[in-house]
Formats: sequence, C-alpha cells, structure tokens
Amino acid sequence: MFSSNINGDDNDVFRSFEQRFGVSAPGKDPAIKHTLPCSLEELYQGATKRVKITREVADRSGLTRKTEEILTIDTKPGWKKGTKITFEEKGNQRPNVTPADVVFIVDEKPHSEFTRDGNDLIVTRRISVTEAFTGYTVHLITLDGRNLTLPINDVIHPNYQKVVPNEGMPILGDPTKRGILKIKFDIRFPARVNAEQKAGMRRLFGP
Amino acid sequence: MFSSNINGDDNDVFRSFEQRFGVSAPGKDPAIKHTLPCSLEELYQGATKRVKITREVADRSGLTRKTEEILTIDTKPGWKKGTKITFEEKGNQRPNVTPADVVFIVDEKPHSEFTRDGNDLIVTRRISVTEAFTGYTVHLITLDGRNLTLPINDVIHPNYQKVVPNEGMPILGDPTKRGILKIKFDIRFPARVNAEQKAGMRRLFGP
Repeated sequence: MFSSNINGDDNDVFRSFEQRFGVSAPGKDPAIKHTLPCSLEELYQGATKRVKITREVADRSGLTRKTEEILTIDTKPGWKKGTKITFEEKGNQRPNVTPADVVFIVDEKPHSEFTRDGNDLIVTRRISVTEAFTGYTVHLITLDGRNLTLPINDVIHPNYQKVVPNEGMPILGDPTKRGILKIKFDIRFPARVNAEQKAGMRRLFGP
Repeated sequence: MFSSNINGDDNDVFRSFEQRFGVSAPGKDPAIKHTLPCSLEELYQGATKRVKITREVADRSGLTRKTEEILTIDTKPGWKKGTKITFEEKGNQRPNVTPADVVFIVDEKPHSEFTRDGNDLIVTRRISVTEAFTGYTVHLITLDGRNLTLPINDVIHPNYQKVVPNEGMPILGDPTKRGILKIKFDIRFPARVNAEQKAGMRRLFGP
C-alpha cells in the first residue's frame, strides 16, 4: 500500500533522479508533500495514524469530482524526523496525466520530558543543590508507559550524566535493540547566600 | 612589500580564479603556502616576525643558486587564524617562468589561559564549591600584560558568566574597539560527601 524511506535523514541513495530533484516524469504531476507530525510515543511504540486527503477523482466519462479519502499510516518503532511515506498516484486524477504521488514526511512533536538525539533519549532534571549533594532518585515514565526508578548516590556535579543503556529509542529494523537514555542535571543554586550559609560552606567543605 | 587578506576566514571574494583554485597563471608557478603560527599576544598587540626562506635565485647568466632570505611580517592587532600575507614572486627564479608568490597563513597557537571566539576572549576558571557560594575574585593578566582584578559577589552557578566589555581581542581596522571577555566557571564538587556534610547542606539550604 505504501513505501517508506527508512532513512530518516533524507539520504536515500536509491531514489531516482526525478524524486531527488522534485522533477516529475513526463505526464506525471510532481509529488504532493505533507508533514506528518508524530509524538515520540508514536515513534517509540509505533501507531496507526489516519490522514484525510481531498483529491479529484475522474469518472468513466473523464469528469472529475472532489472526494475525501482516508490514508492509513502505521508508524514503525524507530522512525525519525524526515522518514518519508509515499502513496503512489494518490494525487488528483486528470485526463492524460498520471496522478501525483502523495508523500508524508515525519516530523517529531516536542515532548515535555524527553528530547531525541538519533537513537538516544535525553532527560534533563532540575534539582536543588542539596539534592545534588545528598542524593536524588529519578522517577520517570518511559515512552511505552513503564515506571523507571533510578537512585543516584553519587554527588551530582554540573556535568554529571546518568547513562541508562537500552532505554533510548528503538532501533529501526532491530526492535530488540534500543539506544541509550542520558539523564542530565540542571542544579539550582540559591540566588543569594547569607553570612551563616557562607560560614557553613567553609566549615563543611573547606575554602 | 606584502599584501594581507584581512578576512580571516578564507572568504575573500575578490580572489581571482587562479588563486581560488590554486592554478597558476601561464608561466607562473603556483603559490607556495606556509603556516605562520602566532601567539594570541602577537595577534593582540601586533609583533614583528622574521621568517627565513630558502629560494633559488638566478644570476645574469641564468644560472641559479640557493640563497636564504629573511622575510619580515608585522602582525596587526586583530589578525585571525586564516589571515593571508602574500610576498609576491618570492619563489624560485627559473628561466622563462615568473617566480611563485610565497603566502603565509596565520594560525593561532593555543594559549594556557585564553581561548578566542572571533573578537571575544574566553577564560574558564576552576573554582571550589565554597568559592562558588562565598564569592571569588578573578585575577588575570591581559594579553598586553595588564593586571585585571574582577571581584564577583554573586553566587556563581554552573552557567554563570562574567562578561567584561572591551577586554576581548582588538578589532582589526579599529584598534580603539575590542570584543568582550567572558569568564566562565568550572565548579569543582567534592567526589564524596559524608553524613555530616549532607546534614549540613539540608540545614543550610533546605531539601
């Protein structure tokens, strides 16, 4: 029903000249491109998305009329921003012209917790300076809805990262493998420090 | 005596085709390129640099012999990595051929304290967590040898930057203007924290 370019980065070397340069074959309209916004959950777990398109369809006599059609796209775990899904000849029907292909290009919707970096996921947690010194437990809900609890007993310094293997995005074509999850920390320092706090810091940690 | 390309970034649109593509004019050898390592001090204050080259020089009868020659380059305040200085026809003399130009391309030597970012200078100071909380005074020696004292009374959080206007690199062509100096901080957290220190942090700064 549809073909997808599994290379997210628009580097499909197998595309023909006409696809690569957006030039239509003689007698074929150029491809119609649409953005397909997907949540990170949809690109992690896969999802069935239905998209309504409007197109001209010709009857037997050659007369065209506008019709609505629902196209179904099954997102696959690991699809990336830029992945292309092509519905061949789903453009307008006109006499003597092959209808255009309709192409959907995946875009990633921003997520409130996770950002994606290739196959990796990054979470930044804002913590207090006391939490940085005394320990902090990261609680988070994965993109497939599991609870993850990660106690950190190290001192969390400004460049500290907790790396969790196999909790990143699924790798397309090998759903048993996933990238890494990196947890970074934004340590909230107090805006002002009084004399007692300054003396306390010197006493506890030296000069 | 010499011409310099004041655009540091190799983007001189006025270069001729032959210069751009390293192709020599008919009857002229292609330019001989040398790197000219300069310290940040030399690019800040300007300096006179002498470079020894060896070249073939022809006598009246056309016979050539190797000679050494000293070329003098006066670096100008604000020169950048990539600035080109051309000594015309200082290559080997050979019958019926115009000697090549000799081109020096400025490279920046790494500095122990400052890094350069265009017209700006960046200094990163490693400080203790106590200094971050109690205050810290930056002492530094500028690239022209002045003592700079910058007391910081703010709490220094991990992304804190002290910006000092007009203490960056001189701006080529307008030596009265300079870029900014940015001071960044790398806050050294203790590797381990004991129970007393943890309790102290909670008491001083809350949870």
